[in-house]
Parts: sequence; C-alpha cells; structure tokens
Amino acid sequence: MPSRDQVPDGADVGLLSPLSAGCPGAAATGDTALLQAMLDAEAALVRAQAGLGHAPAAAAAAITAAARADLFDLRELAVQAASGGNPVIPLVAALRAAVPADAASVHRGATSQDIVDTAMMLVAARVLPLITADLHETAAALAALASAHRTTAMPGRTLTQHAVPTTFGLKAAGWRSLVLDAADRLGALRLPAQLGGAAGTLAAFAPPALDLPAAYAAELGLAAPDLPWHTLRTPVADLAAALCLTVCALGKLAADVLVGSRTEIGELAEGTGGASSAMPHKANPVRATLIAAAARQAPALNAVVQGGVAAEDERPAGAWHAEWQPLRELLRLAASSAHAAGELTRRLRVFPDRMAANLHLTRGLIASERLAAHIEPVLGREPARRLLERAARQAVDDGTPLVHLLLSDPLLAERVDHAALRSAAGPATYIGAAAALVDRALIRTSATPATTAHHPVRDPA
Amino acid sequence: MPSRDQVPDGADVGLLSPLSAGCPGAAATGDTALLQAMLDAEAALVRAQAGLGHAPAAAAAAITAAARADLFDLRELAVQAASGGNPVIPLVAALRAAVPADAASVHRGATSQDIVDTAMMLVAARVLPLITADLHETAAALAALASAHRTTAMPGRTLTQHAVPTTFGLKAAGWRSLVLDAADRLGALRLPAQLGGAAGTLAAFAPPALDLPAAYAAELGLAAPDLPWHTLRTPVADLAAALCLTVCALGKLAADVLVGSRTEIGELAEGTGGASSAMPHKANPVRATLIAAAARQAPALNAVVQGGVAAEDERPAGAWHAEWQPLRELLRLAASSAHAAGELTRRLRVFPDRMAANLHLTRGLIASERLAAHIEPVLGREPARRLLERAARQAVDDGTPLVHLLLSDPLLAERVDHAALRSAAGPATYIGAAAALVDRALIRTSATPATTAHHPVRDPA
Amino acid sequence: MPSRDQVPDGADVGLLSPLSAGCPGAAATGDTALLQAMLDAEAALVRAQAGLGHAPAAAAAAITAAARADLFDLRELAVQAASGGNPVIPLVAALRAAVPADAASVHRGATSQDIVDTAMMLVAARVLPLITADLHETAAALAALASAHRTTAMPGRTLTQHAVPTTFGLKAAGWRSLVLDAADRLGALRLPAQLGGAAGTLAAFAPPALDLPAAYAAELGLAAPDLPWHTLRTPVADLAAALCLTVCALGKLAADVLVGSRTEIGELAEGTGGASSAMPHKANPVRATLIAAAARQAPALNAVVQGGVAAEDERPAGAWHAEWQPLRELLRLAASSAHAAGELTRRLRVFPDRMAANLHLTRGLIASERLAAHIEPVLGREPARRLLERAARQAVDDGTPLVHLLLSDPLLAERVDHAALRSAAGPATYIGAAAALVDRALIRTSATPATTAHHPVRDPA
Amino acid sequence: MPSRDQVPDGADVGLLSPLSAGCPGAAATGDTALLQAMLDAEAALVRAQAGLGHAPAAAAAAITAAARADLFDLRELAVQAASGGNPVIPLVAALRAAVPADAASVHRGATSQDIVDTAMMLVAARVLPLITADLHETAAALAALASAHRTTAMPGRTLTQHAVPTTFGLKAAGWRSLVLDAADRLGALRLPAQLGGAAGTLAAFAPPALDLPAAYAAELGLAAPDLPWHTLRTPVADLAAALCLTVCALGKLAADVLVGSRTEIGELAEGTGGASSAMPHKANPVRATLIAAAARQAPALNAVVQGGVAAEDERPAGAWHAEWQPLRELLRLAASSAHAAGELTRRLRVFPDRMAANLHLTRGLIASERLAAHIEPVLGREPARRLLERAARQAVDDGTPLVHLLLSDPLLAERVDHAALRSAAGPATYIGAAAALVDRALIRTSATPATTAHHPVRDPA
Repeated sequence: MPSRDQVPDGADVGLLSPLSAGCPGAAATGDTALLQAMLDAEAALVRAQAGLGHAPAAAAAAITAAARADLFDLRELAVQAASGGNPVIPLVAALRAAVPADAASVHRGATSQDIVDTAMMLVAARVLPLITADLHETAAALAALASAHRTTAMPGRTLTQHAVPTTFGLKAAGWRSLVLDAADRLGALRLPAQLGGAAGTLAAFAPPALDLPAAYAAELGLAAPDLPWHTLRTPVADLAAALCLTVCALGKLAADVLVGSRTEIGELAEGTGGASSAMPHKANPVRATLIAAAARQAPALNAVVQGGVAAEDERPAGAWHAEWQPLRELLRLAASSAHAAGELTRRLRVFPDRMAANLHLTRGLIASERLAAHIEPVLGREPARRLLERAARQAVDDGTPLVHLLLSDPLLAERVDHAALRSAAGPATYIGAAAALVDRALIRTSATPATTAHHPVRDPA
Repeated sequence: MPSRDQVPDGADVGLLSPLSAGCPGAAATGDTALLQAMLDAEAALVRAQAGLGHAPAAAAAAITAAARADLFDLRELAVQAASGGNPVIPLVAALRAAVPADAASVHRGATSQDIVDTAMMLVAARVLPLITADLHETAAALAALASAHRTTAMPGRTLTQHAVPTTFGLKAAGWRSLVLDAADRLGALRLPAQLGGAAGTLAAFAPPALDLPAAYAAELGLAAPDLPWHTLRTPVADLAAALCLTVCALGKLAADVLVGSRTEIGELAEGTGGASSAMPHKANPVRATLIAAAARQAPALNAVVQGGVAAEDERPAGAWHAEWQPLRELLRLAASSAHAAGELTRRLRVFPDRMAANLHLTRGLIASERLAAHIEPVLGREPARRLLERAARQAVDDGTPLVHLLLSDPLLAERVDHAALRSAAGPATYIGAAAALVDRALIRTSATPATTAHHPVRDPA
Repeated sequence: MPSRDQVPDGADVGLLSPLSAGCPGAAATGDTALLQAMLDAEAALVRAQAGLGHAPAAAAAAITAAARADLFDLRELAVQAASGGNPVIPLVAALRAAVPADAASVHRGATSQDIVDTAMMLVAARVLPLITADLHETAAALAALASAHRTTAMPGRTLTQHAVPTTFGLKAAGWRSLVLDAADRLGALRLPAQLGGAAGTLAAFAPPALDLPAAYAAELGLAAPDLPWHTLRTPVADLAAALCLTVCALGKLAADVLVGSRTEIGELAEGTGGASSAMPHKANPVRATLIAAAARQAPALNAVVQGGVAAEDERPAGAWHAEWQPLRELLRLAASSAHAAGELTRRLRVFPDRMAANLHLTRGLIASERLAAHIEPVLGREPARRLLERAARQAVDDGTPLVHLLLSDPLLAERVDHAALRSAAGPATYIGAAAALVDRALIRTSATPATTAHHPVRDPA
Repeated sequence: MPSRDQVPDGADVGLLSPLSAGCPGAAATGDTALLQAMLDAEAALVRAQAGLGHAPAAAAAAITAAARADLFDLRELAVQAASGGNPVIPLVAALRAAVPADAASVHRGATSQDIVDTAMMLVAARVLPLITADLHETAAALAALASAHRTTAMPGRTLTQHAVPTTFGLKAAGWRSLVLDAADRLGALRLPAQLGGAAGTLAAFAPPALDLPAAYAAELGLAAPDLPWHTLRTPVADLAAALCLTVCALGKLAADVLVGSRTEIGELAEGTGGASSAMPHKANPVRATLIAAAARQAPALNAVVQGGVAAEDERPAGAWHAEWQPLRELLRLAASSAHAAGELTRRLRVFPDRMAANLHLTRGLIASERLAAHIEPVLGREPARRLLERAARQAVDDGTPLVHLLLSDPLLAERVDHAALRSAAGPATYIGAAAALVDRALIRTSATPATTAHHPVRDPA
C-alpha cells in the first residue's frame, strides 16, 4: 500500500465509522459539503437581495462565482472558528477578501446563525433523497421477501423462547412497514431556510424585509420560514426525530437478522458476510451489526438535539452549538444505515429448511396453544391445562412429541379425534392470519415517493 | 396535620414531582388509571368477540361489569407481576376469579402485550386531550401577550449579550408558534389498539380473526392497527417524540421566563411566585423552574423509548419492558408542564419599563448595527467599522452614549445628518419587521382543535 | 380478590416496575422513606445545633420525637410542594405546627436544598447496603458456578457466530468480575450531608457555623461535606454513575442468560421461569428480561443526573429539580436488579450437555484456528489458509466434519500426524488459558465488604 | 485565502467543533492518531511475543519499523473497514504486505478487538495527560481568583433570584473543587491493554499465554488486564464516566461565567471575547458558550458507552461498535473543554464594582434573612415575618430601602438598636463563613499530580 499523507492531522476520515466511510452519504455530510452549503447560503442571500433590488446584480454574480468550497482553506476556517465560536465569521472574512469590490454585499444584514442553520438544512435536503431512495429500495426488497415467504412458517419468538409459529413473510412485511414509516416521516419534513438577522427581526435588511426570507429560500430550494427560528427549533427537532426513527427502524431489521443468523438458529445469513481477523471460517453479519450499532447511538444524539429546543434568548449560549455535531452524525448514521440496509435486504439469504427444523425443536410445544383449543372443549379448561402442562414437562424432559403424550392420556384418547389432534399438532400450519396480514401490509405504499431531483449537490469544480 | 397512613410503603404519590402532584394529568396516569385501562382492554376484547359472534354476549356483559379497578387489589397485582414479568398475568387470573362462570371468555386468544400496549394507548388517549387543551389555553394567553406587546421593544439577547432590539410581542409569538407545533404533533398522533395474540398472527382468535382488531379498537375509541405492532413500535415512538417536543417547546418558554425574571433583568415575573423556606422576600419563578426541569428529563426518557424500536423477535426480552416507565413519565411531564404553562402564561407579569430601561444599558451599542448602516455610506465600510469599534469601546468604558461619541468625531460630524443619526441611535424603534412578523404569526391557528370528548375516563365507581 | 381501595388516585405502587414492586429496595426508596429521611434531616439539624449550644436541648428532643413520617399527610405535602417547587416548604410548616412551642427551632438557618439533598443521600445510604449485599450474594453464586465449570467447554460467540470455544466457568468469572467492579464502585462512594443555608455560606447559622455541618452529618451517619455542594454535584454524579454501572454490569449477565436461554441454544435456564398469559408451556427468562430492561433505562437516567452538574448559580432553576426522579429511579433499578440477580444466579440451571452439543454444530469449524496452527507449519501460511477455507465451505455445505475433509487432502494427509490433527479438531479441549484465567479471577475479592449495619432504616412506628 | 484542496471529501476537520479544531487534543484523537495507536499495538504484541521467545526478534524489529501511520493509506483503510466491520482487518493485511518476510508474525493469535480496544486505551493514555495538565492550570488560576476574592461580596442567586450574598472567592473555590474532582477521577483511571484472542481464552497464543498480556501491556505503558475485557467493559465505562464528569464540571464554571457575563449583570467577562458576524460591539463569552455546548453533549455520549456494558456474548454485535465514536468524542470534548477552561480562567475579568452594585439592587432585601434574625427576638417569629413581608413588598414597589421601612415601623423602631439594624442591612458583610470556606477549600490539592511523561505520542516521522 503506497504511502499517502494527505489526511490532515486531527482529521477524521471514517476509521471509526465503517458503515459510513465508503457510503455516498458520507461525502454529502463531510466538512467540505458543509462549507459548500454555507457558501451556497451566502450566495443565495445576495442573489435574493439582488432580485428584490437591494443589492447589485453584479455583486450577486461575483459572490456566487466565488462561493466554491475548493477556493477556501477548510482547515484554516475550522481553526479560526474558535475565536468567534462558529465558522461563519472567518468564512465571511475570507469570502469578502475573495470579492474585494463587492465585499460590502457579502453577508449583508445576516447573522452567523442564518448561514449555519441554512447550511445544515441544505445538507439535510441533499442527503435526504439518498436516504429515502435507499429506504425505498429496502422496502422493495422486503416486499419481495414478504411475498415469497408469506406462508413460510418459522418459530415466533417472545422473550427469547419459541411462542407460537409465525411466517417469515409476516416478519419481512413488518420490517417493510417500519421502513415505510421512516420514509413517510422523512418525506413529511419541511426544511426551511433560516433568515432573521442579529436578533431575528430582519432589522438590518432593506425594507420590506418581510419578503426576503422567501426569496432566499427559493434560491436554495428550501421552504420559506414562517418566523426566524433561531430559537424556535422545531425544524431541527423534527429532522432529528425522523432520522432517529429511521435508524432505529432499521435497527429492528438488524436485530432480527442478528438473531436469525446465530449459529444455532441459522435461518438467515447476510449475502456477503464479513471476514474475521482471527477465524478463517467466520461469515459475520457485519451489516446488521453496524446498523445495530447505529441504532444504539441515534437515540442519544437525538436527545441532545431535542434538549436544544429549550433554548434561552434570541440565540442561546451553548444549546445551539451543541446541536451541530449530533445532527450531522444523525444524518450520517441514517444515510449509511439505509444504504447498508438496501444491500442487506437485497442479498439476504433465507433458509426455510432451518425455519422448519427449528419449528420442531420443542417437540410440538410451539403448537400447544392450538392443542389447548382442541382439548379444552373436551376436558374443560382447568383439566385441559393440567394435562397440557404435565405433557409439556415430559416432552421437554424426554423428547417425546407432545401429541403422542396427549393421545396416550386415557381420558383424552377416547374422546378426541386422533387425526384432527395430530393435524393440530403440526406447527407449520398454525400460522393464523399471517398470510392475510402480509397481503394487507403489502397494499401500503409509501406516502412519499423517493425523489432525488430537488436538491442536487453542487459540483464545486 | 392529622396522621394519615393510607399511602402504602414503597408507593410514590408525587413527592419528587411537585409539578405533577396536584395536576389533573397525574391521576390519569397513575397506577389505578393504568389498571382501569387494562381492564377496559380486556372487557373491550370480549365485547368485540361477542359482537362477531365469537363469545357469549352474557360473558361480555359480566366481564365488562367486573372490569372495575376498584374491585382489584392494585398493590397485590404489582407484586405478583414480578413472576411473569408483567401485570397482565395476575390480572387475568384475578379477573377470571371475579367471573367464574365466564372465566373461559376472559383474555381469550390474547397475549399480555395486547393488553399492556392497548392500555398505554388508552391512557395516552385519555391524557392527550388534557394536554392539548392546556396547550391551546397557553397559546391563547400567548396570542394576547403577542398582540399587546407587538411593538414593546426589549433587548434581543444572543450568547447572553445584548445584540439588537426585538419586541416582547415577537418573543411571545415565537413561544406560541412552538406551542402550536407541539399541539399539531400531538393532534396528528394515531393511537392504535394492539391485538395480535402470542406472536402477532391472530392465530388463537376465532376466524376470520382479521376483523377482530378493528372491532376491538372501535370498542375502545382507538385506531385500528394495520398490523400487530408488538415489535413495530412506531406508534409508541411517535407518541414519545411528540411528548418530548411538547415538554421541550414549553421548556423554551420557561427558559426565557427564567432569564427575564432574573433580579438584574426584571422584565418578567410569574404572577404568583414561589415561596422560599429560608428567605421571606423571594418570589421564585417556580413554574418556569419546574417546566425547565421537565425539559431536562424528557429527551433522555424519549431516548429510552426510541431505542426500544430496535427490538428483536416477536416480543423482545427487555426493550418492551424498558418502555413502560419512561413513556408514562413522558405523559406525566407533558401533562403537568402544559398545565403549568397555562397558569404561567395567563398570569405572566410583563414590565415594559424594565425592558425599555434595559435597552439603554449599553449606551446605544444595541443600535450600533443601524448606526453602522448610516455611517458606512458616508465613511466607507472599513473606516466606519473602525470608528464604531473605537467609540463602542469608549462607550463601554466611560458610559458616554455612543451617538455622542460618533457625533464628536470630526470627520463624521460634518458629513452626517445629526438628527437622523440621533434618531437611528434610539433602540426602541430599531425593531425591524418585528410587528409584521407578529401579525403573520398570529394568523396561524392550530391544525387540531382541542377536544376532550373522545376518551372519557371511565368512572370506576 | 377482595376490593382494597387504599391506593390514592395518581399514586404508583409499581405496576409498571415488576422487578421492583416486591423488592426490599422499593420500600426504602418510596415517598414515605423519602419523607422520613427529610424529617430525619430536620431532626438531626436541631440536635446538632443543640449539641453546639445553639438550640435548646428540649427543642431537639421534641422535634426528633415529632419527626415521624406516619404523623404527616404525605399526599397533601406532595400537592403543596407545587407552590414552592419542593416538598420542604410545606413540610417545615407542618413540622412547626406539630411542635408549636419549638417552632422557631425548626429548620433554623437551613434552606430547602439542605434537606432534600441530605434526604437523598440518606435514602441512598440506607439502600446501598441492600444493593451491596445482593451483589455479594450474586458474586458468591457466580464464584461457585465459575469453579464448577472452569473447564466446561461451550462455544465462544462473537458477532452472533461461533468463534472458538470458551468455558462457562470463564463466562461466570467474567460476570463476577463485573459484579465486583460494581460493588467496589458503590463501596467507594462518599455520601455527604448537605448544609449551607440559602446561598451556601452558612450565614444564618450561629457562629462558628463552620463546625455545624460535620456535627449534622455525624448525627445522620453521613460524611461531612468539604463545602456546601448545592451546585457542586460530584456526590450526586458519582452516585448516579456507580448505580448506572451496577445496573449495566448486571445487564451483561442478563444479556448472556438471555442468549443462553434461547430455545435453540438451551445452555442456560432461569431456575423458575416466568409464566405466559397465552402459552402454557413457556418458561420465560423473566428476571434476565427485567434486568435487561433496567439496563436500557439506567444510562439515560444517569445522563440527566450528569447533565445537572453543569448547573448555574447557587441553586439552579431546573437542573436540581430534574435530578430527583432519575436519581431515585436509579436507586430503585439498582436495588431491584441486584436483588433479582441474586435469585437468578443462585438458581441458574446450566446444561453442559447442550454446551457440548452446540460445540459440534459447526462440524469442527469452531476449532479451525487450532487446526490452522497445525497445518500452517506444514503447508505454509497461504496454502494452509486456502485449504482451510475450501474445507470450511464444504463442511458448512454438506456437513462433513472439517477434520475428515482436511485429512482427505492428499498433500496434507501424508505430511501430518493424523492422530494429532484429530485431537486438535476436538473443540472441548481448545479452551486455551480459560481455566487458569478463572483461577486468577477468583482470587479477587471485593475491596469493600458488604455491611448493612451503618444506616438502619428508622422504624417510623 | 489561497486554495487548498487537501481535505478529502467526506472528511471532518473540525468545522463543527470550533473548540476542538485548534486544540492539541484534536490531533491526538484524530484518525491518524488512532491508526498509529493500532500500529503501536500490533508492534507491541510481536515485541512481547519475541521477549517471551514466541516470535523472532527480527520480525519484532521489522514490524515495529513498519508500524508508522504515514506509511499507510488511512482513507483506503477506512473504506475497507466496512466489509469486516472494523479497521483492523484491512490494517493487518496492509501491515503483512509491508513486511512480507515476517507476515506470519503479524497479529499472531490476536483478534481485531484486541487491537482496537488497546488502541483506544493508548489514545486515551496519550490525551489524558494533556487534559489533566489543563485541569491543573485551571485549578491554579481558580485558586488565585478564590484567594483574591475570598471576601468580595456578590449576590448569591437561587432559582434566578437574589437570595443572600456570597463571595466571588467562594464561587471560584467551588469551581476549583469540581475541577479537582474531575482531575482526581481521571487520575484514578486504570487503562489496561486488551489481549484475549478470538474469544478471550488466549488459546491461539503460545503457552504459557497467561504471561503475554502483561508483557504486551508493559510494551505499551498500559496496565496489565486481569481478564480479557472484550465484554467486561468497566475500563471503558470508567473512562467515559470520568470524561463526562470532567466536561460537566467545566460546564458548571461555564454556566456561571455565562450568567455573570450577561449584559445586565456584568460581573464577569472573558478576557478575549468572541466577535460577531453582525454586531461590531459584541464581545461574546465564546469559550464559556462552547464549554457549555460540550456539557450538553457529554452525558448523551456517555450514555451510549455505559449502555454498551450490557453486551452479550464474547463480542457483541453492535454494542462494541457503537462505543467507538462516542468514546473518541468524549476524549475530544474533555480535551478541548479543559484547554479552553485554562484560557478562560487565566484571563477571566472580574468586576467587583458591579458585584457590589448588584448587591444593592433589591434595596436591602438580599439581607432580609439577617434582618429577620435581628427582628424576630424583638417582635416574635410571626409578627416579624409579617412586618418583613410587608416592608419587602413596599421596597420592591417603590424602591425605598428595606431598612428605612423597618425603622419607620413604630413598634420596631422603639425596641431595636437602629445602628445595629442598619449595619445588619449592609449586604456586603453578610457573607457568613464564606472566607473560611474558601480557606478550607484551598487546602485541598489534587490527589494526582499532572504528569505528561508516561505516554509520549510516537512521532511517526
């Protein structure tokens, strides 16, 4: 491997985020993408002002031309951000220096938070279509699995124990419904631009300033804000909440894949398992593992963002700054989890034979609910329950199938239809309304079609 | 105070929840209310089954009659819940014992989670109207404040420092918009009943079981579920997220009241401040304090619930059980915070004189942005900035009003309209579009009218 | 079940906390226990003052006699707490009313927070010995398991897959080391009394006030504080951190019991499994489930308490109040988890036969690391790895034991000692240093012996 | 600003972490530092093996020579980490490729987690001395402030209201005690190396493997582990807890600086305030703001790490991977907060005049507790309280000093020593034991001297 020393000291390139490092969402959420979004906001502001006749058109053109991330020293901006507490202050200085003739038109009337908040929304607007597209691909893969396995019986498991059978199709349909829930919530988000000036009164913009925010938002393809939302953080809170649900919804899928992949269970496997540094034979469920890891982080990150809603004043001393990294990380976790879930579900290997074999592990106990329903009318509720419990214990102890033990009970044997009881003992047919539930679930389509057209990432070159 | 020993050992009556103890939402979320909701779920199930011809009508009537919380030993049920891990197991036994002739019709085909989840949704459905009503009362009080003070200038504060002026009306309109955001999100919630049986396949219900969940939900006034959602926790996650936003939105209001109430600031005061055990003169902003305390807890409680979305199997071993207390506590915090916010905003005392006085604390610096806009065209951007910074430093140092210092600058003095500059220096008029923003914000009404009619709390007597 | 209506409306008796409801720690953390602790603090204060000659001895005696929780109306105090924001204000009024002649000596010089903080520490001091005792019983049960099973081979599992063997004894020894870590951290806690007066300067106590806090602490069996710690919250943060670690350490044990209890794995079972409301045959790992549920809540509750360290002023408006419930709940979760862990480990059923059977599920792949070590010197590293991977794939595909496939490789067959390779293929002996690690681990004893003598719970009758 | 395009797409250089970007701790926690630490771990392993005669000395030398981060392609490693779920798998391949003759000696017997965990501890070991040194510099600055201002009276504030006076020295002494608490907890940490092999049994290391971990730890300057701790996460939990306390302890200091910096209060100011992009006059308390922002994130990040203690199996599928980023971020937040706190406290500007002026804002009410103590013996407790409340209300209403109002009360006027009452009304002397508490607090020195010698960061060039 050739030496390459271009990663600056102190930079993160994803070494601790294996799910994210190679994922399209990573580039869209990196510092370069953020810088570009901030520049886009600055350029949009002056264009909007020019459109209203409040700035020279030439200045708007010059600033827009200069607003390219690759023309700025990102690391230097990051270091300079410390003195003012946010990266806009040095950025504005650098942008003014880049357009000396139009310096007065840069950032005119705006405040740092106008730019940072807008940039965050812009980054979100650019990443969300990637996420939604991956969710819809995941949902499509799950729909295929649900259809194919609508009657593929497998043990239903509660509190780690076999309960009664379910079908893998119902499981996949359930995963899909969560994925669509997430897509719906992401699709319903309204991402507003931020513009208010120093204290949110628009006071430093040329009158009638009230029209400016909508024009600015239109330049950026963002929603027009009702009010400046410097400390009315519903847009950020909604975004974080929907991202958190997305990651955790995928975490449910991952949790089930992890259980199904256990060596002893063997019902599921990732199409391409992960290697091990120590054991040649292992094929680890790596994607499920990393999605599960994301689901353990998202609620805590979301908590920081939600906590920031209770922010004092017109700009709080801490609550706003605390939002930045958790919000960006949520975008990243959602993007990389959705991407990995697409791959995971498209390539998921399903082993119906193992599901069938597992169904018989309890020697028929998994169908005892249905057997009870047969026996109770014959023996009465309490005697039936006592018989079943006695037989269940013996089935567990010596491995005799439960139905044999029941049919060897003299009282029951003469009163019950043996063939019917044997049939009731077969777990594979005790799947209730599973198939019908799958059919009903598959009718649902997402409320929000995936679109990638609205927020093209600007090519800085 | 007479001795009263009726509180059982180990019980909580709200000693550590002063906001909640006396609030209507407290009773609606207590263990008795939960027990009643579980009993309501059991009774609704058999009524729904009877309606479909799957259970005797007499059994439905008898079980409904017996399903009164006051007929059960709540503490004993709580203690017995340990052995099975949830309170439904002992409750079903007790309910069967209460209706010996109809014991077989109790809980028929259901699983514990069907009852606990439904009961939680029922409790939520009964508390949410209380919360929404309080939010709407709060919003109404805030609308009045916003109207009355749409041009009442006060310092806009960012990072604890005076920035530029804003108006108290804009602040109140902002609070109101957050309150309406919360009300909208609560109003958009869909609270489904839960019914799936042991593994969510409806297998133990008489066919066609697919119709039963909707009938059951209708009995309870809850939404019909698309799928059993034992481990598809979107309904719970959505509920927790909306409650968290509610508490934190009110936390913003509280944070601002706390700042405004500071002795040195004195712009706001709670109508009835709290007493102190040590200091006779103090009138603490107690409601704001307790709402702020709620807002510090809600995000963490929400995190537990969101984390539970990533739950394995058909019923997880821990993630579900971990949800119960945090979700109930979120209901309680939201109910008590909304109730307190209603009182707080109705009685909030506003001191425009102090706002006006505070505006002048910086000797005109708070309007320096507007002064800069006047001076820059005259002197050029950089010279203007240098003059302003020099004058600002002196104003801070010796208390001379900024405008005097500017007008004593020889270069500027002869080129600028003194009266116009003096006028620009007046902070009270530098409120930008604040009034227009208030007017625009007040147009908004909540998408969801407060209703209290749908989910009457059953009177157990 | 007879009707018992003594639970007040809105009260919690543990219906949603099945682990806690019947546990000794529950009573010790209930509102009655807190009330008693607050009364104990008030009584200790006046006794300490009397000891220094700053209060009449008769007043100290009268107040001590009156300071019995059963003489106060707990619910009424909870409701009255709302107006001042904490329960001490109404409590002081009630206590003064109870001792009219000595009313002036009640709460003299103190502030509400002195009493609430001290009461919390007192409650902690009374519950911690219960927790520590349960942890030590758990550790003893685990030591027995570790000894008995030091060489009982079972599959080591990583990322859900069989990796290489381990022993159950090493697993149990690991659990024990976590339990001792928790006990050590709880044992190292220093629980100080709180006394500072209104702003922490001791100004309202008779001079020399500097001696009073230690005398007060001594009356209560608590540590003397270095400084009033109204907003120096290390004692609370340390307590919460240690409780959180305790719950999560037990959560590790629970997580492993849950995996080992899976129907397909069957290596472990709780001695008395939990019943199911739907399925007669199920024996759920209920204690492990509820401990796992506690471990999902503790980190979030801890987060609220840690966040409270960053508290402004001499008493913060919210951060302090937000601590109360999470801290109490942490005490409760730790106490009930430790109690349940004691029962769980004493009665844990271990199935070595299933462990042995599971070891062979991968047809020898679980020992492939050792086989590789045998083959590599013979064939070279890369050829050996290729052979193993090819053979491993075939073993997975058709079930042929790995060692047969290796020995049927012509190149290898003639160069390797067949008996040695067969021996190396036996997973049960590939346990490395497991037994020695168990021996080393069992040498460790806890740094802090369990004591229950120091903080007797006062009998209010 | 010249164009510099060396930041890879998707990389973070600290644009959203202004506190960290320029701080020494940032480089020590970046991906390059982590890579170097992983390489150090690999090299130490083979050196330790060579020392025990289990590996060729030449291989140890060659591998050590090759283990330089600058020889590896960090971004490529990050991308490749996805397939196996962690960066060690591609790293081992690359390291083997770098030393073809000694490839067999690379990573021999180890598992990925051995390397990642050890690298994390190594990174911590290298950053902690930076943090501790900054904490001690902070403590020294605070000691100087506490001494200088031990009797500088200022308003004690509770629930945002003036309560009774305190001194700024006591406040600074309190901050210092928190800083020392944090330093003590960091100093007490024991950072062990990790070594266990695939399932923690040391099975793939040459016997007697039991000695290897200590030798390996010694090579790295880390503590020797008692047991492999792949899923016994106390070391990580303790580290995260201590870092969280550190950040939140500094958050208390920041919270108070933010209050003291408020325009209306003006008692404190950062030596070099931050600029604003909109307002030329503002000097924002930027460092305090960013420390406060860190304190809002640390508890949530800590929650993720604590939650990972409850990890199943010998390596969990998610809990471990979820730890990495939060733990690294905690190191970063602690390092950058401590660094900023050092600067903040060394340059903090204190304004005793404003403190004195603020003391008089309440017209004497701030000393009403002392006045009450004078009046009560004269009038009796209840009449005294009524008089004080009446006078307090009037003082608030019309601004008459409280003591004038009291002395104009006919009943009191003739019974009280006017001079003594006037003296008691002076707030500046009502500071109780504040000075003595400062003296006592300053006796304390940290248990753990700051050392930077033990864990030099390896110079990769």
